[in-house]
Amino acid sequence: MSTKIPVTVLGATGVVGQRFVRRLANHPLFRVEHLAASERSAGKRYRDACAWRLDGEPYGGLGDQVMAEGTPEFALSPVIFSALDTGPAKELEPAFARAGAMVFSNAAAFRMSPEVPLLVPEVNADHLGLLEVQRHHHGWTGGIVTNANCTATVLVMALAPLHQAFGIEAVMMTSMQAISGAGYPGVASLDILGNVIPFIRNEEPKVEEETPKMLGRFTGKDVELAPMLVSALCHRVPVIEGHTEAVSVKLKGNPSLDAVRDAWLAWRPEPQRLKLFSAPPVPIHVHTLEDRPQVRRDVETDEGMSVHVGRLRPCPILGVKFALLGHNTERGAAGGSILNAELAHAKGYLR
Amino acid sequence: MSTKIPVTVLGATGVVGQRFVRRLANHPLFRVEHLAASERSAGKRYRDACAWRLDGEPYGGLGDQVMAEGTPEFALSPVIFSALDTGPAKELEPAFARAGAMVFSNAAAFRMSPEVPLLVPEVNADHLGLLEVQRHHHGWTGGIVTNANCTATVLVMALAPLHQAFGIEAVMMTSMQAISGAGYPGVASLDILGNVIPFIRNEEPKVEEETPKMLGRFTGKDVELAPMLVSALCHRVPVIEGHTEAVSVKLKGNPSLDAVRDAWLAWRPEPQRLKLFSAPPVPIHVHTLEDRPQVRRDVETDEGMSVHVGRLRPCPILGVKFALLGHNTERGAAGGSILNAELAHAKGYLR
Amino acid sequence: MSTKIPVTVLGATGVVGQRFVRRLANHPLFRVEHLAASERSAGKRYRDACAWRLDGEPYGGLGDQVMAEGTPEFALSPVIFSALDTGPAKELEPAFARAGAMVFSNAAAFRMSPEVPLLVPEVNADHLGLLEVQRHHHGWTGGIVTNANCTATVLVMALAPLHQAFGIEAVMMTSMQAISGAGYPGVASLDILGNVIPFIRNEEPKVEEETPKMLGRFTGKDVELAPMLVSALCHRVPVIEGHTEAVSVKLKGNPSLDAVRDAWLAWRPEPQRLKLFSAPPVPIHVHTLEDRPQVRRDVETDEGMSVHVGRLRPCPILGVKFALLGHNTERGAAGGSILNAELAHAKGYLR
Amino acid sequence: MSTKIPVTVLGATGVVGQRFVRRLANHPLFRVEHLAASERSAGKRYRDACAWRLDGEPYGGLGDQVMAEGTPEFALSPVIFSALDTGPAKELEPAFARAGAMVFSNAAAFRMSPEVPLLVPEVNADHLGLLEVQRHHHGWTGGIVTNANCTATVLVMALAPLHQAFGIEAVMMTSMQAISGAGYPGVASLDILGNVIPFIRNEEPKVEEETPKMLGRFTGKDVELAPMLVSALCHRVPVIEGHTEAVSVKLKGNPSLDAVRDAWLAWRPEPQRLKLFSAPPVPIHVHTLEDRPQVRRDVETDEGMSVHVGRLRPCPILGVKFALLGHNTERGAAGGSILNAELAHAKGYLR
Repeated sequence: MSTKIPVTVLGATGVVGQRFVRRLANHPLFRVEHLAASERSAGKRYRDACAWRLDGEPYGGLGDQVMAEGTPEFALSPVIFSALDTGPAKELEPAFARAGAMVFSNAAAFRMSPEVPLLVPEVNADHLGLLEVQRHHHGWTGGIVTNANCTATVLVMALAPLHQAFGIEAVMMTSMQAISGAGYPGVASLDILGNVIPFIRNEEPKVEEETPKMLGRFTGKDVELAPMLVSALCHRVPVIEGHTEAVSVKLKGNPSLDAVRDAWLAWRPEPQRLKLFSAPPVPIHVHTLEDRPQVRRDVETDEGMSVHVGRLRPCPILGVKFALLGHNTERGAAGGSILNAELAHAKGYLR
Repeated sequence: MSTKIPVTVLGATGVVGQRFVRRLANHPLFRVEHLAASERSAGKRYRDACAWRLDGEPYGGLGDQVMAEGTPEFALSPVIFSALDTGPAKELEPAFARAGAMVFSNAAAFRMSPEVPLLVPEVNADHLGLLEVQRHHHGWTGGIVTNANCTATVLVMALAPLHQAFGIEAVMMTSMQAISGAGYPGVASLDILGNVIPFIRNEEPKVEEETPKMLGRFTGKDVELAPMLVSALCHRVPVIEGHTEAVSVKLKGNPSLDAVRDAWLAWRPEPQRLKLFSAPPVPIHVHTLEDRPQVRRDVETDEGMSVHVGRLRPCPILGVKFALLGHNTERGAAGGSILNAELAHAKGYLR
Repeated sequence: MSTKIPVTVLGATGVVGQRFVRRLANHPLFRVEHLAASERSAGKRYRDACAWRLDGEPYGGLGDQVMAEGTPEFALSPVIFSALDTGPAKELEPAFARAGAMVFSNAAAFRMSPEVPLLVPEVNADHLGLLEVQRHHHGWTGGIVTNANCTATVLVMALAPLHQAFGIEAVMMTSMQAISGAGYPGVASLDILGNVIPFIRNEEPKVEEETPKMLGRFTGKDVELAPMLVSALCHRVPVIEGHTEAVSVKLKGNPSLDAVRDAWLAWRPEPQRLKLFSAPPVPIHVHTLEDRPQVRRDVETDEGMSVHVGRLRPCPILGVKFALLGHNTERGAAGGSILNAELAHAKGYLR
Repeated sequence: MSTKIPVTVLGATGVVGQRFVRRLANHPLFRVEHLAASERSAGKRYRDACAWRLDGEPYGGLGDQVMAEGTPEFALSPVIFSALDTGPAKELEPAFARAGAMVFSNAAAFRMSPEVPLLVPEVNADHLGLLEVQRHHHGWTGGIVTNANCTATVLVMALAPLHQAFGIEAVMMTSMQAISGAGYPGVASLDILGNVIPFIRNEEPKVEEETPKMLGRFTGKDVELAPMLVSALCHRVPVIEGHTEAVSVKLKGNPSLDAVRDAWLAWRPEPQRLKLFSAPPVPIHVHTLEDRPQVRRDVETDEGMSVHVGRLRPCPILGVKFALLGHNTERGAAGGSILNAELAHAKGYLR
């Protein structure tokens, strides 16, 4: 235990914060040093500050741990996992980086900052190199690494092998997103029971701008956005966990469906080769049953860290269309951030 | 009452059949002469043969009417509304047409037959002219008029004014469809509660082939398909009534969003000019609230006969995208067929 | 129009307030003079202050009306409909009564006050007599009339004819309550989708104490509680509108099931005899189908003003059990209050 | 492996059958010899005959096993787990017993037969003694052991320690039952989305007659029914897995709530003492949070083998009321039958 790296969870009481805590409870590399949230929670035991909503051991076994105020003064650890909202993240995450911590953030605040890696380890492990740029630029000893919007993360997992194999010219993505993505209390039941809401604030721009950054090329000093058109149409549906995405894609050279399938099946990116602890053995499951993947039945596979594709078929407009599914609060949030930290550790970015 | 046109409802016990009966209960033009279904129901009272599932007056006030066997021998009326499945429709609808009846069908059997109008009165009223071709070709005194697949019907309502104003080159449509579209018992609750199913058998091909026919040009002897690319991605979601569609469209000349909105607002097609009984006063409602239309809140407007658009915005790939909503078992089924018959009456096709 | 009684709706922007407004839009007796809510809304147009969530004409046609602050100084009318929360109701309702208004309240604040009628017109019309006691006691020219908790209101509608015919000794009631009962945003979707919550704060005590008051005897100066045992077990379920109740009841003399059914069928209480505008023609619908009433299918009957019973059968413990259903935000809230005002008008309590 | 007892699963393709297979996949005592279903499935591989609907390894790893016809001629093993419907069970289960097999049945066919144990190991382990009576009576070398209706099983788990500690005089139970209890396809989604159905065929009589048998006293030659009144009010709600029950109970001597709680907490019945493989370490979880247990959050605890109580409070009519929750297709079906077999093995009833 003593050799594990101490970490802080910022925003530990929320929907994503709880998933951080649960995942870290038995992590081989990290141990929770500080559970932090707003000033209001500081000094309370985690079990008193937090309405635990996950199955498994309540409070990740940390119910009696006393919460700290979420500032560098009270909650500094070498590694910070941030489940903060955008507003607080904007202020606090740089403060922690300046104080020497490596911040792995789930917040939107710095995702599009040129010197911040928007990291999905299977997709763009080399973007971690931006940390050097960042440290040099700010004079920090720590740094900030973000994961992407949940919908964009799931999308880019399916796109990366196609982009590597063929090059992507355009992607149309219509999402049907779970309510957990809105946090707690989040979506009112009166709004979503038996309904579809064709709007999620800021979601479409995030997908449209984060996707080309994630698929972009690291030049050694910045990331060149991938030159592709992205159009997102985002919906909330009465599903608890997991985002379903209907994707049409235009690939260079119009490869066959078999070639597309083979690109997915052959994909064996770095986290799998490095056998990172939170990396799923197979990052993309290719379904063959005509009505799969289905979110309620498939989303918990591999503790939500893999994504699922299926219904691969020709698109009369863009060439190829398929169904896609991923776990928004695991792969798209807590699990993704922890995998980012595991990659950073493997690459020597954590002291 | 005596001057109303007698009609038969085929498949009167099902989800769509019941909506036919309810709509016809107080119709100014038609009166129900025969309620027909399978042999098994013949001779039973409607209330005994039918598990009524709609609100309003049970059995449309016809609970005591004795059901007939659904063949021309036992259930011939001048007008037939058919809610049959494809298999029986294939055999029975031509038999009724041959016997002199005008069949207004909700079945898929003859939708793509070159001499059968695939009619949405707001969209292609002139396609009714195919009846002459049809009668000449088969030597029938009656005829068959079909309405389209429910998803395609809703789509084409929103597309028609754009096609007329600008011309459509390509349409990408992702649907989130209600369970009522699958009839009763239809979708198992174990399959759909808290889930999204990314597959509906035959739905995507129907949308992709029926849309260009509906938007096609009647030449006097056939319908030239509209030369547009259509791509459909169809999903079942836990919604009771109403299909939500996420649409991206490529229009000739790249008109502005304002021009698109104006085309919808200015649209005043024939059923509205003729003030047909089942025609909604405004066929397309253009929503301005950022999170509307929403299926549970908007779908019953105008007894489900109008469609709803909203969230008009630029699409980085095709130019324009918007949210669309319509009632699958009213505008897309029973109400649509009855409106077809009203148009045929106004145009002198019913004796 | 000029002869209609001017009314104020307090709490006009909420779930119940909107139903008040919709019901009053075309009311033959009342017209909306003031729409009032918190200070924050005062001065705004109703359409800007209110996220309208009902079908039918948006904002009850009053979207452009400017809202008033909900105090006697700014929003006094002869009749006040209050959809306030308990806290503000405690202070504001007596202020309006003191200022001369008749307050018909949906709030819990004064339901159990000895001199306040807890009124369901079909059940205890004579309790209105408490107004004399109340005015005398406080020196008011106005007064306060409350309706009961929604669950208790539905229950007492089914119990009243049995209590009148036989006398009730004990009632066990297990509720399965709609989310609309919690207002908006109310129940978080993460809490209720695919779930049952076996707890609603304060709900069980309300049912247990309000039921004997409503069924109690007005002595001329107070209400003697009906001497019966009441036990309530309340649950939230994923239903939008309408409370389902499973009821077992012990009746004096152990009447037959037929006698119970006859008591319901024969019940013709005062609002129906007076033909009050909002009174349903038949207050209790007695279902005979073995699986009815069902909330989604039956709750909107009579605009939610009647209740539904079914599945009448022997209870091995208390004698009789049955299924019960009623509309929580209409009969149990807005519609109930308006019917109370109609009764008060018919009885000469409104000037 | 060779020392494990070979078993047959009858009705292996259904909702409960699949759970049998999944539980048996890694069972220390049993191995699946035959997967059997209707004649129609015989000869097919399990993966082809079965639409697998559970998470975890598909087909329990037995996807390639060829299915047998479910008769003693083709599918005899020493132990039979039956997930048959009542009709086939009536004929086939005695045939297997006659052929020497011990049948552990989930079917209703023989539950109330005087010589058949209606077994819940925590509750009435000694009822297994009926097997001697049964074998003597029929001249069988095998035998039939049934588990109870799912709702009754969950109920009796909570009642048993109270009956042992105090004696039960009356139980009123209102259920809110999951759709999985109706099998697949089971409940139509059009019937249950956003709805409550106050009727489940035969469910109430089963609970009312099976409960006193399970809590009855084994005399050595038969079971004396426990002399208690039981009243059940059963509902279907839109929940996937798990039955919620609202229970009121009359106990002899009117013990305090603390005494009731202590009876649950102190309960340590035989399967827990024997540490049977499928027995949960704690059979009853006593919740203290005011809004728990909740089915979606708690039902999967201990793989669905424990039950949950909470909200213990006084009942004005019967003395004590509480919320109860259990897993209908695990504790109430597959898991229950397997635990029965484990008990029979521990007691020497399996050769």
